[in-house]
Amino acid sequence: MRIALVAALVLTSHFAHADEGQWQPYQMLSIADKLQQRGIDIPASQLADLGQYPMNAVVSLGYCTASFVSPQGLVVTNHHCAYRGIQYNSKKEHNYLADGFLANTQTQEPSANSNERLYITEKVTDVTDKVLTNLTDEPLARFEAIQANSKALIKECETDSNYRCHVDSFHHGLEYYLTKQLIIRDVRLVYAPPETVGGFGGDIDNYEYPRHSGDFTFLRAYVGKDGKPATFNEDNVPYQPKSYLTINPNGVKAGDGIFVAGYPGATSRYNLTSELQFASDWLYPTFAERYQLQIDTITLMGDVDKDIAIKYAGTMASMANRMKKLNGLLDGFNATDIVGIKQQRENDFLAWLKQDPNANQKLISELEALLTEQHQQMQTHYLYKNALSSEMLTAASKLYRLAKEKQKPNDERESGYQLRDMKLFKADLKRIDSRFAPAVDKTLWLQDLQAYVRQPIRNEVFDNALSISENFEELESKVEGLYALTELTDQTKRLAWMDKEAVDFETSEDPFIRLAVAIHDTNMALEKSEKLLEGKLSSVRPEYMKAIIDYYKSNNWPVYPDANRTLRITYGMVDGYKSKDAMYKQPFTRLEGLLAKHTGKEPFNVPAKLLAAIKSGDLGKHRVTSVYQQQSNCQFMSCLDKPANFNSVPVNFLSSADTTGGNSGSPVFNGQGELVGLNFDSTYEAITKDWFFNPTITRAIHVDIRYILWMMDKVDHADNLIKELKLDQALQQKASQASNH
Amino acid sequence: MRIALVAALVLTSHFAHADEGQWQPYQMLSIADKLQQRGIDIPASQLADLGQYPMNAVVSLGYCTASFVSPQGLVVTNHHCAYRGIQYNSKKEHNYLADGFLANTQTQEPSANSNERLYITEKVTDVTDKVLTNLTDEPLARFEAIQANSKALIKECETDSNYRCHVDSFHHGLEYYLTKQLIIRDVRLVYAPPETVGGFGGDIDNYEYPRHSGDFTFLRAYVGKDGKPATFNEDNVPYQPKSYLTINPNGVKAGDGIFVAGYPGATSRYNLTSELQFASDWLYPTFAERYQLQIDTITLMGDVDKDIAIKYAGTMASMANRMKKLNGLLDGFNATDIVGIKQQRENDFLAWLKQDPNANQKLISELEALLTEQHQQMQTHYLYKNALSSEMLTAASKLYRLAKEKQKPNDERESGYQLRDMKLFKADLKRIDSRFAPAVDKTLWLQDLQAYVRQPIRNEVFDNALSISENFEELESKVEGLYALTELTDQTKRLAWMDKEAVDFETSEDPFIRLAVAIHDTNMALEKSEKLLEGKLSSVRPEYMKAIIDYYKSNNWPVYPDANRTLRITYGMVDGYKSKDAMYKQPFTRLEGLLAKHTGKEPFNVPAKLLAAIKSGDLGKHRVTSVYQQQSNCQFMSCLDKPANFNSVPVNFLSSADTTGGNSGSPVFNGQGELVGLNFDSTYEAITKDWFFNPTITRAIHVDIRYILWMMDKVDHADNLIKELKLDQALQQKASQASNH
Repeated sequence: MRIALVAALVLTSHFAHADEGQWQPYQMLSIADKLQQRGIDIPASQLADLGQYPMNAVVSLGYCTASFVSPQGLVVTNHHCAYRGIQYNSKKEHNYLADGFLANTQTQEPSANSNERLYITEKVTDVTDKVLTNLTDEPLARFEAIQANSKALIKECETDSNYRCHVDSFHHGLEYYLTKQLIIRDVRLVYAPPETVGGFGGDIDNYEYPRHSGDFTFLRAYVGKDGKPATFNEDNVPYQPKSYLTINPNGVKAGDGIFVAGYPGATSRYNLTSELQFASDWLYPTFAERYQLQIDTITLMGDVDKDIAIKYAGTMASMANRMKKLNGLLDGFNATDIVGIKQQRENDFLAWLKQDPNANQKLISELEALLTEQHQQMQTHYLYKNALSSEMLTAASKLYRLAKEKQKPNDERESGYQLRDMKLFKADLKRIDSRFAPAVDKTLWLQDLQAYVRQPIRNEVFDNALSISENFEELESKVEGLYALTELTDQTKRLAWMDKEAVDFETSEDPFIRLAVAIHDTNMALEKSEKLLEGKLSSVRPEYMKAIIDYYKSNNWPVYPDANRTLRITYGMVDGYKSKDAMYKQPFTRLEGLLAKHTGKEPFNVPAKLLAAIKSGDLGKHRVTSVYQQQSNCQFMSCLDKPANFNSVPVNFLSSADTTGGNSGSPVFNGQGELVGLNFDSTYEAITKDWFFNPTITRAIHVDIRYILWMMDKVDHADNLIKELKLDQALQQKASQASNH
Repeated sequence: MRIALVAALVLTSHFAHADEGQWQPYQMLSIADKLQQRGIDIPASQLADLGQYPMNAVVSLGYCTASFVSPQGLVVTNHHCAYRGIQYNSKKEHNYLADGFLANTQTQEPSANSNERLYITEKVTDVTDKVLTNLTDEPLARFEAIQANSKALIKECETDSNYRCHVDSFHHGLEYYLTKQLIIRDVRLVYAPPETVGGFGGDIDNYEYPRHSGDFTFLRAYVGKDGKPATFNEDNVPYQPKSYLTINPNGVKAGDGIFVAGYPGATSRYNLTSELQFASDWLYPTFAERYQLQIDTITLMGDVDKDIAIKYAGTMASMANRMKKLNGLLDGFNATDIVGIKQQRENDFLAWLKQDPNANQKLISELEALLTEQHQQMQTHYLYKNALSSEMLTAASKLYRLAKEKQKPNDERESGYQLRDMKLFKADLKRIDSRFAPAVDKTLWLQDLQAYVRQPIRNEVFDNALSISENFEELESKVEGLYALTELTDQTKRLAWMDKEAVDFETSEDPFIRLAVAIHDTNMALEKSEKLLEGKLSSVRPEYMKAIIDYYKSNNWPVYPDANRTLRITYGMVDGYKSKDAMYKQPFTRLEGLLAKHTGKEPFNVPAKLLAAIKSGDLGKHRVTSVYQQQSNCQFMSCLDKPANFNSVPVNFLSSADTTGGNSGSPVFNGQGELVGLNFDSTYEAITKDWFFNPTITRAIHVDIRYILWMMDKVDHADNLIKELKLDQALQQKASQASNH
């Protein structure tokens, strides 16, 4: 039995509870007993209610999570989530990225950026029946009907321009939910530490622990005088949220139960073992190889040309991040036989399924056949798709498609080409300039073309359109020619193509436009074949998931859906972990760890003010004597993880909460639902949790609220915020408590 | 008070005892109480006696430590210490480095190499009075008299060619001891694991923990039929040592006291803070910069030319090792304010000295002045000395000096140029070919010359002799010319110069010989100025050390001398450590850690046989259920460092023993003086212990005897050795003990 296996795993790992699960809020009632076991005393029914504290204080930034912390619309999130807004406000004369920022009054709060939004989830509705209505058995029609039904629901929901709606698939298409969010359009910057604090450790510490990151920033939501969302205006007033989080300045101790609310991005927990195997054996290694080549290439070109280094800094940072994630996945698969574990679980499920006389016994073989087809499709087209990687070709293809889509009524256009998408479409076309150098783009494309021509699976239309050559020198001069002749590198000319007709493209002399036109039909056919497969999967996958859910239910185990950027709650315990044989990572880091890492150079450059504050030892009422509930009288170093005297301010801490990308900025709550930290990352060993939650090594990394408060109080003297957060009283109370002990 | 400071440090670090000290065996009596506190029950008087068990079973390999473990001369040491012997016996048809080696009978034991030696220390005599006799105040004469007195003592001691003697300075010249060692000349190879086991982790794991190295090899000492040392001969018989170590197959647990005996190389514990500052601020960073350039250069040249990569593999490995050590020192100085700690201690000492009416109050200022002079001398001549770095110039200079030294009577020749040194001299000249490519040597030399000409402190004689140019292109073609014209790259021709007269050099046309001759006098003058300074220091340093010792004694604190390659004993406790904020390293690694590190590629390539044995889980009577003395009932992961069930074979373990380079292969004893492991490395954070022993982070890394025995029994089936070591009974006993629990 799967459950038995989990229990065995749990026992051999000396772990009392597996805190797996990114739960939909309404599911809280089904895990009320688990929450209570963890010491989470706030009623499950309260957590399930999006209209009540604390869930009505949790908001989305679109790509991150944040939460209200004052009645005046004050919001806290990660520094890296607010990065664009801080960058936007950084000028030569006041570099907020370098020096940090604090508005002492509301009038000093600048707009974070006219593009920044806060999304407040007001309602989540089960729309499964409405999405899965009027479906036919023909796969492509089925796929398109699901899209059309979803679009109609969104349109119906978005009557008021202050609301954004989206329909999301749960359990691989078994269920659909419609989320309705209020859009706050005036977001302002309130308080941010320097980047050297917020992003302390940079790429090197990314996904690593022990960590010492002050990854927090305060923003404020503003609305029009009528209390309704409005774009930036000096007359706007702070938004008054339905509720706001209570901060507990005493934080948490090791062993305490915590929970985290937020918008996790994507996981693959219920995918089949064959899919994991495919990812582990082919997909990730193949991606990693190409990324590494690209990273090495851009590094070398950047060494030679500093302008390139600067232009590609952002791209390189995100490539480094993806590379680290890929390496983490591959290392994780190497360290733990996740394929074996998942196969065992799958076998148990199949054995269970076999005993059910009503079950569709062909289900698995049907699904596996479709997955095999999908994997073959990916492998077949992988190098061809890479061969289209030129930024210029991509732009030309999207522009031509826009012209073609515009021939249809708006509602029938492909998502991404509708009127509501045009602002983003234009911004994307503009943004190319900020991260593009023809020399680099050319080189990377050429590498992809070389890999493509080296192998036999070719696209004849593309080969002919490009007059492709297997001679690398000819290929290079061909590519040189395209970049020399195109006018798409010019932003104004590129943007002008947004308003042109299909026929303009078809008669254009621009080599990239010509190429895009030439391969349009073959690429559309490819997309259609992929949609066809999606359509086939959309009838088999939900059936599989239904069987899985029934199987779990028969073992009294509730089932949470894979992450899909919708609002979820996860719970866990403040706890360290054994990262590898003989290596144990303690749950809290302390201020002094910053001193040890400090080199004076990025990314380990503690700002002078913070350095002085730590060295001075002026922790005041923020001093924490112990982060453990119990003391040990053990005599040797082995017991150092339970120091009698922590005697510092906790900087970051670990918990076993089940988070993933999108949970950045999520509030971390203690068992009473009070704010005790902000989620901002997870550990390297935990990267494989996208596929498998291993309770012994999966840890999320949080900024400790006590570090934020100490910074606010002792380093940045943000007395206005301390007052707004009503922490002046709380901290005094805490100090008197401390002196009583 | 220094002692108070140490105590404070110890207390704030929650560490009960500071196990600092590389003690001369005779000093054991003075620390008997400390040994007892650590649970070392073997009498201190027994440890102090070189004629008794266990010290009479501890031997030197010249560069490593080893010990006798059977009455038949069986010796155990590290794999990396026996490396040359294993390499020497590795052929295409039987690659012992790759596959390991086991002799099932003594007749199958090959000579490890005709150059391998075992040195058995028979006597250590205090010869301070004899070395420091007939000294004058003139510094250079003083220096030379000390040398002459030492040489005379050695000559007197080495009457029998079976003995090697050496005189070593202790406490910076305060004391001198004469060591007399029996030389075993026939050393054979008995049992070695594959290099992938013995050196598992390679350069990457060097200085790192958690570690999983099977760094052990068994050798056997042979002597002539008369029982006296003899060179290799088939008729030789196993040497019967005076005693041999008892192995305890039960190993140790966390918290157990242990001690280590061996030949540690060099430390600088009593050097002045100004010397540490100089090393930290100038010496190490300067060396590191040059090494890194050399490593990068050889890497690049090796990328282009595989032959170069192969030829410089050994050089690169040792450079990587030195580089890691330098980085460890610099990182360590960054992480801990060792300069500050040492300055505080020095201040306390100076305050104590000031109160002594009889003390020489000028002592420190005199010493500091000499050290300043020494540091200035090093800085002044650093780039010039590097400018002599060409292997060919070095060879030419040594050969010319040999011709000059030979003009003096043998006893008066500089050490290294006496008749007793000629074998090594020749071997060194020969060995150049195995690690030398003119293209690389030329490039590295050119880099050094460029650094030299870029700055103003120049040696006119050298500049003129080389017709040096500040134009880099001219310099390059100059250097090209020297290598093109020299005949020293030819081994036969190079060796022939050993027998030539000075006049032959002085009339030679070889450009390197001509250069060597031209700069000989200026270099001799430089050496003389350095000896002069040594002479001055040789009267001030001992006085300083005497004051230090008096100061320590006045605090009832015995003083061990800095390491100097003589026999020492250090003690400590089996214990983990906190390597940095929130990172705790547990004291034992286990077999399964090998699986997690295994990638199938060097340096993490577990051999198939070992892999299968671990995976099979066949630990038999070697299974260890717990490595902790007490159990904890703590509920959360933070307690995972005290697992109720270790349930594996311990591979490596940590102790707080005070070791350094030269301690490789040292036996690790439990409190009863039984063998429980082999020392082979220390941790990265401990690298700064050369200057300062920080008890909270200084850990030595040992191979656990239980891993060796399990390998012997379950992987390699070395039944003959198990029998010879009388482990068949011990292991059976152990098994029955285990079943009783």
